Amino acid sequence: MFEARLSSTALLKKIVDALKEILHQSTLDCSDSGIQLQAMDNSHVSLVSMSLRSDCFEKYRCDRNLSLGLDLRSLTKVLKCASGDDAVTIKSADKADKLQLSFESASMDRTADYELRLLNLDQEHLAIPETDYACVVHMPATEFARICRDLSTFSESVVIACTKDGIKFSANGEMGSVNIKLSETSKGDVSVQVEEPVTLSFAGRYLNTFTRATPLSEKVKISMAPEVPLLVEYPIEDYGYIRYYLAPKVDEPDS
Amino acid sequence: MFEARLSSTALLKKIVDALKEILHQSTLDCSDSGIQLQAMDNSHVSLVSMSLRSDCFEKYRCDRNLSLGLDLRSLTKVLKCASGDDAVTIKSADKADKLQLSFESASMDRTADYELRLLNLDQEHLAIPETDYACVVHMPATEFARICRDLSTFSESVVIACTKDGIKFSANGEMGSVNIKLSETSKGDVSVQVEEPVTLSFAGRYLNTFTRATPLSEKVKISMAPEVPLLVEYPIEDYGYIRYYLAPKVDEPDS
Amino acid sequence: MFEARLSSTALLKKIVDALKEILHQSTLDCSDSGIQLQAMDNSHVSLVSMSLRSDCFEKYRCDRNLSLGLDLRSLTKVLKCASGDDAVTIKSADKADKLQLSFESASMDRTADYELRLLNLDQEHLAIPETDYACVVHMPATEFARICRDLSTFSESVVIACTKDGIKFSANGEMGSVNIKLSETSKGDVSVQVEEPVTLSFAGRYLNTFTRATPLSEKVKISMAPEVPLLVEYPIEDYGYIRYYLAPKVDEPDS
Repeated sequence: MFEARLSSTALLKKIVDALKEILHQSTLDCSDSGIQLQAMDNSHVSLVSMSLRSDCFEKYRCDRNLSLGLDLRSLTKVLKCASGDDAVTIKSADKADKLQLSFESASMDRTADYELRLLNLDQEHLAIPETDYACVVHMPATEFARICRDLSTFSESVVIACTKDGIKFSANGEMGSVNIKLSETSKGDVSVQVEEPVTLSFAGRYLNTFTRATPLSEKVKISMAPEVPLLVEYPIEDYGYIRYYLAPKVDEPDS
Repeated sequence: MFEARLSSTALLKKIVDALKEILHQSTLDCSDSGIQLQAMDNSHVSLVSMSLRSDCFEKYRCDRNLSLGLDLRSLTKVLKCASGDDAVTIKSADKADKLQLSFESASMDRTADYELRLLNLDQEHLAIPETDYACVVHMPATEFARICRDLSTFSESVVIACTKDGIKFSANGEMGSVNIKLSETSKGDVSVQVEEPVTLSFAGRYLNTFTRATPLSEKVKISMAPEVPLLVEYPIEDYGYIRYYLAPKVDEPDS
Repeated sequence: MFEARLSSTALLKKIVDALKEILHQSTLDCSDSGIQLQAMDNSHVSLVSMSLRSDCFEKYRCDRNLSLGLDLRSLTKVLKCASGDDAVTIKSADKADKLQLSFESASMDRTADYELRLLNLDQEHLAIPETDYACVVHMPATEFARICRDLSTFSESVVIACTKDGIKFSANGEMGSVNIKLSETSKGDVSVQVEEPVTLSFAGRYLNTFTRATPLSEKVKISMAPEVPLLVEYPIEDYGYIRYYLAPKVDEPDS
């Protein structure tokens, strides 16, 4: 028996919005300690990893480890039917082929019960090696989203360069070129820890799908090291995170 | 000579919005007592009936009974050109082939006069038999609209079940199933009068078009009896109503 | 060397929005006194003329006359990436093939530098003859935009008639007809100077593209004389204007 209750549906909506673009279907691994998800995106280029501790929930019970295969687009449709301030309870029996979602409104005597078919999905467990990153940048999540969107106008590739002076995003295309520079600010909006400067090139459209997680967090953490995948991390309050990994482009970035 | 003046165009906009999706063209029957409309929807499945008493108007004159055949989509285009707080005067001579609409703004010396071609439409007068309904439910119109929209995500059919405990809406499709239950609330948002419990199945897309009338009324009244059409009624302030009728699906509802 | 700095990008956005629909590409003529643009629209029917004096800019330097051929759609994409309250500096070296745009945000240590390719465009200099207009109307720019949009619903042609009583806009099509009359108001929203009444017919879709300039000015000035092009003028604060010219339709207007 698995049962988890959140006092507000809003958080669940944000998490599913952050995942559904990059994964159409995926498996939630539920255990006593919380819920985990790890998967390659639909085109097998980037990787997403989510962790949500059990203390995020008002009520949490997981008698035995359970893998719930979900169609995230169907789940999105169900969540669209709920108000952000509804309480939501997610339930599944141990060998069930269905996930139950119950929404209760505080203000009205209204309950809405949904049953979603569970899917049998192949699951490859991917080991993510621990990495010592040469550069770690914290910046406002909305600013990162805006830069990724703006640079996509110019080119498919985005170059990210990190030095002690700050972080620079560049793109170069038919129409012209763009450089956006952020420096560490006194008010602490942007912070940069650099052991060694790094310049890497990435496919902009993956960065753009990562920014679907923007509503989850005020800040995003960007970690880079030469020749290893970029890590873009959005904390989920104090209860976990969504992490996106994207390998750099092999061709030399034009910095 | 027919002439009717409303101090605000907003009400007229809401009425036409409630009709234009279900009827592309229709005939308004004007008499000394007010304006009536009754017609099958474009696909001849549901029926709509509107009544607006003459005292709804600031000024009302109808010398002899008049049938005005209108293209509701053209009328919508004209109404889009008016502000909700313009005063509007509708006029037609006795054997005219045109309807005149004049809009006056309070704040500026602006008048806008429109002439719409009238249409000769075949008109069948449909008798709606008086029915004693086994269940009558009053509920917030926005809640009804939201439920109809949400259930359409799951299935073409919507099952409505009414008992002394409340009203339940259900749908069951490929993706999964949903049950939404509303109970009578102490604050009177939802009230249920039940002589005999009724469960009927309906085509959700018609219910959805009925909810175009939502801006007209705070509450909607839903009346059901076995084997007779559902009645969904939106009052137009104290001056009349829009009523929609929809026959239940003949196949057994899966309750 | 050309360099011009505006303390807010908002004005530049409005100017480019007013031009980009009517001109996909165009040449800015920069001189010591300011920036000028004059061109036929993409379909060579209407003419647009812009003038912006150098004192509009916080900083302005133009060592020698310079013609900057720009793709206005690319420029629009760049401006979309900037906030309205960013400061913007536009630069170009004397024989450069690039235009540099630099945006600085006040609130954050953020700079965004763009380079746009310059184009070699054929430029015909069109003499606009001085005209004594028989009618000059000042009216709210939003009202003019609304009327042009509303009348397009009815017909491709818009008849504008100006008399001492006011200005009247008419359209007549399949669906019906419309007349919108504005009179001079005591509060001065609408003012009409008439030496001789004028009635002319115009292609509505050009009028509609002119109204892209609406956010620039509270008032628009409309000048007419028999058999000469209509002039629609939007002042750019106290620093210049955008003027649109449109020849009347040759067929007799049905007034």
